[in-house]
Amino acid sequence: MQRFVYFFGANEADGSAAMREILGGKGANLAEMSRIGLPIPAGFTITTEVCAYFTSHGGQYPHGLQAAVLSNLRKVEQVMGKGFGESENPLLVSVRSGARVSMPGMMDSVLNIGLNDQTVKGLAKGGNERFAYDCYRRLVQMYGDVVLGLKPEDDTAPDPFETIISAKKQEKGVSKDTELDVEDLRELVAKFKELIQREKNVIFPEDPYDQLWGAVDAVFKSWNNRRAIEYRRINDIPHEWGTAVNVQSMVFGNLGRESGTGVAFTRNPATGENIFYGEYLLNAQGEDVVAGIRTPQPINDAQKGDSNLKSLEEEMSDAYKQLLDVRENLETHFKDMQDIEFTIENGHLWVLQTRAGKRTGLAALKIAFDMFHQGLIDRETVLLRIDPEQLNHILRPVFDAKGKDKAKAENRVVAVGLNAGPGAASGKVVFSAAQVKDYVESGEPVILVREETSPEDVGGMSLAEGILTARGGLTSHAALVARQLGKVCVVGCEVLDISYENKQMVVGEHVIKQEDFISIDGTTGEVILGHVDTVKSEIERVVIENSLKPEESVIYPLYKMVMDWSDQCRRLKVRANADQPDQARTALAFGAQGIGLCRTEHMFFGEDRINKVRQMILAETPAEKRAALAKIEPLQREDFKEILRVMAGKPVTIRLLDPPLHEFLPKGDEGAEAVAREIGVSKEEVIAKTAALEEMNPMLGNRGCRLGITHPEIYDMQVKAIIEAASELKTEGVEVLPEIMIPLVGDARELSFIRERANEVASRVMYEKKVHVDYLIGTMIEIPRACVTADEVAKVAEFFSFGTNDLTQMTYGLSRDDAGPVIRKYIDLGIVRKNPFGSLDKTGVGGLMAIAVKKAREIRPGIKLGICGEHGGEPSSIIFCDDIELDYVSCSPYRIPVARLAAARATLLKAGTYVGSQVG
Amino acid sequence: MQRFVYFFGANEADGSAAMREILGGKGANLAEMSRIGLPIPAGFTITTEVCAYFTSHGGQYPHGLQAAVLSNLRKVEQVMGKGFGESENPLLVSVRSGARVSMPGMMDSVLNIGLNDQTVKGLAKGGNERFAYDCYRRLVQMYGDVVLGLKPEDDTAPDPFETIISAKKQEKGVSKDTELDVEDLRELVAKFKELIQREKNVIFPEDPYDQLWGAVDAVFKSWNNRRAIEYRRINDIPHEWGTAVNVQSMVFGNLGRESGTGVAFTRNPATGENIFYGEYLLNAQGEDVVAGIRTPQPINDAQKGDSNLKSLEEEMSDAYKQLLDVRENLETHFKDMQDIEFTIENGHLWVLQTRAGKRTGLAALKIAFDMFHQGLIDRETVLLRIDPEQLNHILRPVFDAKGKDKAKAENRVVAVGLNAGPGAASGKVVFSAAQVKDYVESGEPVILVREETSPEDVGGMSLAEGILTARGGLTSHAALVARQLGKVCVVGCEVLDISYENKQMVVGEHVIKQEDFISIDGTTGEVILGHVDTVKSEIERVVIENSLKPEESVIYPLYKMVMDWSDQCRRLKVRANADQPDQARTALAFGAQGIGLCRTEHMFFGEDRINKVRQMILAETPAEKRAALAKIEPLQREDFKEILRVMAGKPVTIRLLDPPLHEFLPKGDEGAEAVAREIGVSKEEVIAKTAALEEMNPMLGNRGCRLGITHPEIYDMQVKAIIEAASELKTEGVEVLPEIMIPLVGDARELSFIRERANEVASRVMYEKKVHVDYLIGTMIEIPRACVTADEVAKVAEFFSFGTNDLTQMTYGLSRDDAGPVIRKYIDLGIVRKNPFGSLDKTGVGGLMAIAVKKAREIRPGIKLGICGEHGGEPSSIIFCDDIELDYVSCSPYRIPVARLAAARATLLKAGTYVGSQVG
Repeated sequence: MQRFVYFFGANEADGSAAMREILGGKGANLAEMSRIGLPIPAGFTITTEVCAYFTSHGGQYPHGLQAAVLSNLRKVEQVMGKGFGESENPLLVSVRSGARVSMPGMMDSVLNIGLNDQTVKGLAKGGNERFAYDCYRRLVQMYGDVVLGLKPEDDTAPDPFETIISAKKQEKGVSKDTELDVEDLRELVAKFKELIQREKNVIFPEDPYDQLWGAVDAVFKSWNNRRAIEYRRINDIPHEWGTAVNVQSMVFGNLGRESGTGVAFTRNPATGENIFYGEYLLNAQGEDVVAGIRTPQPINDAQKGDSNLKSLEEEMSDAYKQLLDVRENLETHFKDMQDIEFTIENGHLWVLQTRAGKRTGLAALKIAFDMFHQGLIDRETVLLRIDPEQLNHILRPVFDAKGKDKAKAENRVVAVGLNAGPGAASGKVVFSAAQVKDYVESGEPVILVREETSPEDVGGMSLAEGILTARGGLTSHAALVARQLGKVCVVGCEVLDISYENKQMVVGEHVIKQEDFISIDGTTGEVILGHVDTVKSEIERVVIENSLKPEESVIYPLYKMVMDWSDQCRRLKVRANADQPDQARTALAFGAQGIGLCRTEHMFFGEDRINKVRQMILAETPAEKRAALAKIEPLQREDFKEILRVMAGKPVTIRLLDPPLHEFLPKGDEGAEAVAREIGVSKEEVIAKTAALEEMNPMLGNRGCRLGITHPEIYDMQVKAIIEAASELKTEGVEVLPEIMIPLVGDARELSFIRERANEVASRVMYEKKVHVDYLIGTMIEIPRACVTADEVAKVAEFFSFGTNDLTQMTYGLSRDDAGPVIRKYIDLGIVRKNPFGSLDKTGVGGLMAIAVKKAREIRPGIKLGICGEHGGEPSSIIFCDDIELDYVSCSPYRIPVARLAAARATLLKAGTYVGSQVG
Repeated sequence: MQRFVYFFGANEADGSAAMREILGGKGANLAEMSRIGLPIPAGFTITTEVCAYFTSHGGQYPHGLQAAVLSNLRKVEQVMGKGFGESENPLLVSVRSGARVSMPGMMDSVLNIGLNDQTVKGLAKGGNERFAYDCYRRLVQMYGDVVLGLKPEDDTAPDPFETIISAKKQEKGVSKDTELDVEDLRELVAKFKELIQREKNVIFPEDPYDQLWGAVDAVFKSWNNRRAIEYRRINDIPHEWGTAVNVQSMVFGNLGRESGTGVAFTRNPATGENIFYGEYLLNAQGEDVVAGIRTPQPINDAQKGDSNLKSLEEEMSDAYKQLLDVRENLETHFKDMQDIEFTIENGHLWVLQTRAGKRTGLAALKIAFDMFHQGLIDRETVLLRIDPEQLNHILRPVFDAKGKDKAKAENRVVAVGLNAGPGAASGKVVFSAAQVKDYVESGEPVILVREETSPEDVGGMSLAEGILTARGGLTSHAALVARQLGKVCVVGCEVLDISYENKQMVVGEHVIKQEDFISIDGTTGEVILGHVDTVKSEIERVVIENSLKPEESVIYPLYKMVMDWSDQCRRLKVRANADQPDQARTALAFGAQGIGLCRTEHMFFGEDRINKVRQMILAETPAEKRAALAKIEPLQREDFKEILRVMAGKPVTIRLLDPPLHEFLPKGDEGAEAVAREIGVSKEEVIAKTAALEEMNPMLGNRGCRLGITHPEIYDMQVKAIIEAASELKTEGVEVLPEIMIPLVGDARELSFIRERANEVASRVMYEKKVHVDYLIGTMIEIPRACVTADEVAKVAEFFSFGTNDLTQMTYGLSRDDAGPVIRKYIDLGIVRKNPFGSLDKTGVGGLMAIAVKKAREIRPGIKLGICGEHGGEPSSIIFCDDIELDYVSCSPYRIPVARLAAARATLLKAGTYVGSQVG
């Protein structure tokens, strides 16, 4: 029989860290911690498979679950020495979600389950009656909010329970919850129950088992709440994974001055420094820390800084020592930076959770290399620890030092918070996450400013340039999400006095209103009025500008090491898509091994050329056409010469003209008139030609090689320009490896036709120039038919480069220009998981690619195979390209570092080297 | 070593009829005739493989060819007892083309090779000096025209040799060639040679071997002349096949009154009657008959009619008897109607060629059944003898008897010619084939009227409604091409006095000018002034209108038998694409076994509906949308009810809405205003919505199932209407088999989503109506991704119907609306052989279909598979559908007979039953 429930506690466990798929990350790690003897409260995990069953069976559970839960509950009672629902010594439990990957704050939890009018008295017997009724009050409130749905959907609306508490405090003339006494709390419990009955027409369940099952239901259901779905969409987590549910004995951080609760990172998650970092609250339950309602205290003196808050190290040095041991144990065991939750109950430390900590790109690099130097992990694991996208983050521009100096001189640096997400961001201040979208859609950069953020804000956060909060530390929600999204972020900037109502914040003497422009430096934590100039990232300053010496850079050495190790490890070559010489230079600096796509149409749009192109299009005879082309040819030749020179010794794939001719003609009457004037024909001619060339579906029209066949003189000119450029360079002694790429081939005979002409043109040029150039002729594979008939195409193609942008359009029968509303709806409904234009569709488009690769290699085993669609720089697509054994990927110059690392990881993943837990 | 040359003659042969691929049709049949002892002049065939080599090697021949030609020539000399190039008894040979299928008149021939100033004297020794010099004159003229290219490209320009002959005749005051004497001819030869030297700067080769190779070169080259390429394009013959070349001893029909030459059909090729039919010319060479320059005489009395021409039967009864024997022999041996060329040399009959005769649709049916009844062929061969497209011809409208009576009464029947291509055609008279295109492109029907037609006219003939000639019999070029193209045709209408110069013809008292309207009856040969009403074909009058009794029809019994036999033989079911009840009725009358595609969008465009549809599109809330749809629903339900009632007991596949919503909105400002007024919204709203829905590439936009997902209420309404219709009919006792087809599925999850909703809607309806309806939910496979992921799609689809129109567009990445110029160019260049939108691309699109079929059947072995693209009615595509084992094809109602026969032929071809020579 399938096992639905896994026990953990008392240094044993049914599960382990390896079982994250069915136990979720939290459950798996609780089991693991129990196995290695860490102090965890006993409990059990209900599997993700039960979630899947629950979702697909309209909220029913599989047969046998109930019995399994009961027997495990008995085991927990035994270990903890308490009884669930017993009046004397009641066992209380928490019910929490726990998905395969962490989705912080997205789903629901219910704590203190097991309390009712009877058991609360038993709990109070320990001598702390106020504590017991506070727990009871919290249970009824959470149960009402989460299980019975009283929590308002709109996060700006007040929680109805909090309204009752506020009223009570006002009545008593006190300001803090802690100032309420037992009687007050007892009264609150009664009022809460009344509220529930009034609003939901149900009676709060006194039966602990009813409470338990209600909570389990609610947690499973919360997998499909709106914000969880949105979070999965943004973070690309499959909807079908489901969550596990963890039922765990309650331990209490709110039993008095010897109790507390906190979260910690075994190293700094923003900078990666090997310093234990965490925050805690005395006499509090866990959600108080995570929610950011009270300002937490630092766990140790090292991180206190100027703060006059007391650290855990000072206040409870024994517990802190226990925590240091735990830190040591966890890092040694998991060999990764851990993010832990702990509770101290009357001086005794309990660990409630551990997981690989989310970190910034900088931290990812630093931690990985530090652990390597500590001997904790090997080189391969270093590479697998760094999400390739994180390299992108460290390539972002940073604020210019001079600009910062100027801002300082002008007293525009108005605050300093915690540097939670490195980088530079400037934008308009917006105080509501919901409004961010409107600004972004009209092209305005936004800095989202919040007191603190909450899970409802994730959508807006993902669109903002940067995030600034007044409260919370590096463990706060804002910091955590920013790390995950790679956003620039400053948190805990307590001097900000934010008023949502007035849409402004006051910082000292400054009043900053919504839409005012500010800048935040996520590397230093500074908040600056107005705009500050940016400069390129350290890495670019080292590799491209040479304006920074490698040894002066903090990040470059780490970057260099990742790249070197990646290059030693990867099989896939990495080329760049570059149309201009300067792009080629950038690509080279980032390590491109060639150019995989040099688009020639961009060259046609140059100011000095577009009218010649139009003359060619408007020409009435082939002779006139050739005359117009003859004027373009020397310009093209110079383009090619420059690029080939920059890439000396490396292959350069040049794609012949692709877009339909009407793209070069002006739109509208005025445009036609201007063009007519400029090139000396009648306006009517221009209009007539434009109309004649108009197409119903330009994507499926006369473009690519079709153009090369219906207007062969264009390709003749381009081939001539390429071979002339190559010949002249070769004569100069430059090594050239041009690869002529014919786009949009669907039938081998198209390619044969063009190839034959191209070879003729090339022979003529080489004969005239008296030099032999080695060039290849191949094709872009971007038409489904080319995949299906790849054996035929391979007979005449020396290389294939998968043009997955168009191939995706054709395979889906969906135009990228028109797909927006469809794809958005599909992602919302879970019909597609990722936008196939962003991440390669491995089944469909990939299926066709695999067919093409197989057929091509059968005919021409040595055929060179690559990809030059945008997917060539996307890590999961790169893994696929490695799987089907392409020879190279080609991507935009700035994606090259990402691609190099991703290619290395692809090799490692295939080799199965990777066994540890994964970041994210 | 590969064999390049095959000998035939003296009752033996290296080749046989089975070797048509390498010997061409003519060569293969000459070999066969030699084997069965028919009197053929000895010769040899150079294979089509040599042609391929010649074409791909820039006019070079393979090593060894020359030796093979020489040794075979020696053999011919031996058999014929003459010597090539010998002065005493010279062997003359003809050099003719001969492709795998006949391409009459498209390629070149050269006759009388071997004559020069010496050998002509040897030929003259037989006593006929005039004959010898006439042969010589013809050789020089043909050699100049064909080999040296003196024949003008423009067929209206005079042949320069004919100009010299005309001058000579004028000088001598005679009107006929035959009135020129030996001296005249000798002089002509000299003048011809001068012309050649002057115009081409070459000397006419006196060496017979130079003549021979020059002629062979020219014939191979003529495979790629403009008109041959065009002919292949129209007749769908692959350019790579190439032609063979036949070198054959000359025999002479121009040796005097005991000689002659002719062509004959073993049965009447227009009507199929079992009457020997042919034409000949006394004292003439073969090209005189084919070219239609002299009016030929009938071969027998049976066909003389009112003519006062003498028949061969009268003039040379012995030769005629020999010819009758040949007819008997050929039909017994080849078991098919034969088209033969013969020459009588001094009373001795020689057969120069035989081939399966081209015939009209009516003749094809009649001949096949007659031969079946004669015991010559079996049922299967009958089916294989009828080209399915020919059924289409007999379904054409014919002139209304009343209309004809009226025309007769009004004396509008002005002439009667030979009924060469049955059917009714009306149109504007056009006297030049080149001009037909202009008229047709501006939508005008055309009757092409020519003195006689020539190979240059084929393009124009293929576009005309009908063809009318003044000269030539059923063996003339016009009759032959008309039979092949299935055109209405009247030939040999000698009373027409045509003047190309004045662009008019005179018939008795009537002057008919270009652009005047005439009608021609290809069944009776009548030529009628003005328009005559048409009625449906006999078959339609029997099966649809019931206005004709089966026994009163000539054609119906033949049709019935073909259909019955086809139905017994075929595995593929045949359904119809029908959107309306009357279409469904027609389909049923033609034998449809169900409806494979009922498009619902046509129902949306009805006058009573379009505004409701627009209301729905313009609705701002889902509730308004549903309200608008609720008004459409009863109308849709009635549509479905009618169709399901007509098709009682047979499956009906209903496709839910497919086109993008913008198709339902008005174009332009005025349209918007009208719609705004009608449905009571502002014009601006209409314009804004239209703009919002506009798409760059509508073909790849929000349509098909995407619409069903982004606007689920539309499909809800349609499913409701279908199931309500079905439920109500079932309650009435009508058997209903609705199949709900979801278009444009690319991902199984799209279908799952829609299927789930559809099942819910259906359940609700059935619950309300208290009746259970069996319905299927399946999908149209028209997106490449659906083919590649067909295993996943098949999990949720109960049937697939291949929508090959869109699948072809997506697989090629080519929009049908925009493909015109590309496809035309591609066909001209031989890059594609057939338009893939007309005939299924078996490799590419078919490759994807085969993948889909395999994957689908692996998951769901019983899945119902069909095709509903336009290819479903195209014979070669149907063969492919049978090959990949689809269950049915679906086509337009009028294509159903074609599809039934094509499906039967597919079965037979697969079984390999067919062994004989094929028509066409």
